[in-house]
Amino acid sequence: MPHIDLSNDLPGITGLMAFRPETAGPLSALAETLLRADNSLTRGEREAIAAYVSNLNECRFCELSHSAFAARQLEGGYDVVDSIKRDPREAPVSPRLRALLEIAASVQRSGRAVTAADIEAARAAGATDIEIHDTVLIAAAFCMYNRYVDGLATWAPEAREAYDEMAERIVEHGYEASRGPAPEVSG
Amino acid sequence: MPHIDLSNDLPGITGLMAFRPETAGPLSALAETLLRADNSLTRGEREAIAAYVSNLNECRFCELSHSAFAARQLEGGYDVVDSIKRDPREAPVSPRLRALLEIAASVQRSGRAVTAADIEAARAAGATDIEIHDTVLIAAAFCMYNRYVDGLATWAPEAREAYDEMAERIVEHGYEASRGPAPEVSG
Repeated sequence: MPHIDLSNDLPGITGLMAFRPETAGPLSALAETLLRADNSLTRGEREAIAAYVSNLNECRFCELSHSAFAARQLEGGYDVVDSIKRDPREAPVSPRLRALLEIAASVQRSGRAVTAADIEAARAAGATDIEIHDTVLIAAAFCMYNRYVDGLATWAPEAREAYDEMAERIVEHGYEASRGPAPEVSG
Repeated sequence: MPHIDLSNDLPGITGLMAFRPETAGPLSALAETLLRADNSLTRGEREAIAAYVSNLNECRFCELSHSAFAARQLEGGYDVVDSIKRDPREAPVSPRLRALLEIAASVQRSGRAVTAADIEAARAAGATDIEIHDTVLIAAAFCMYNRYVDGLATWAPEAREAYDEMAERIVEHGYEASRGPAPEVSG
């Protein structure tokens, strides 16, 4: 049960956004810009970074939802997403994404944990400055979203189907159009 | 020296925002809503939470800037802000703010570290559900801003005067109006 009375039974961040639309606006706009706006990193790659960091933070709602969003938009689907979460060094992804996932893991521990060697490795694998910037900010943003969702003890559906339904909406309509109450995932 | 070429010499998050205006928009809007919009928590109290979490994350630029913003808007100024950063349990602040700072410290460790007892203590000290929500989100947001600023190795001015100048602009104009290049703090 959530720590505060949300006056709705929506799961994870969707319940928080319905409770506090004032902060939902910038939070949705940030997710839309980071994960879906034009970028040389694909939407699937960016969602994979989000799922990976959420798994490191043990935030079940964010991990399962962004794993579903990544699986739908990444070649290889859930197999690749699951292997990234197990160990990015062994995952069947490009050397560039692998190096960016290493940076994300450092950011998850602390901003001060990112080393010049992390950055050099990403550059050697072909990452641009914008891609490095966006990876750091995606990882940092999920250190926020994860703490927000778990710090208020929101609930997470058990069944993968619930997250696949959310994925359909997000992939089609995006984060800003999808933040209203969503009866199809409230059960 | 920053890990990536920002093509500007602005300190901390201001250099990152000038480098990537696409993400600066939602990041500024979030700060404005959390720290300055109408709220039963004063602007000084909310900035004190931001400074406290930034200190726990050892993010010097954010700690010093939000300490300056808090000092300017909180009765007691720097003395109170410094005592909060030393130990909120001993700080001369209301029992309500003290309990909210305890929640913020839990969030800084992990969303999963916030306990029902933390929440009960805040309620017993008079905190509302909205105030608890906003405290969790402010603390979570600074776990993002701090990682963003340090994960890209931005620089932080040494002198307190630089932060007091930023405080003048922020207190008067807010986060969204102040995010452009700011020659008076670039030295």
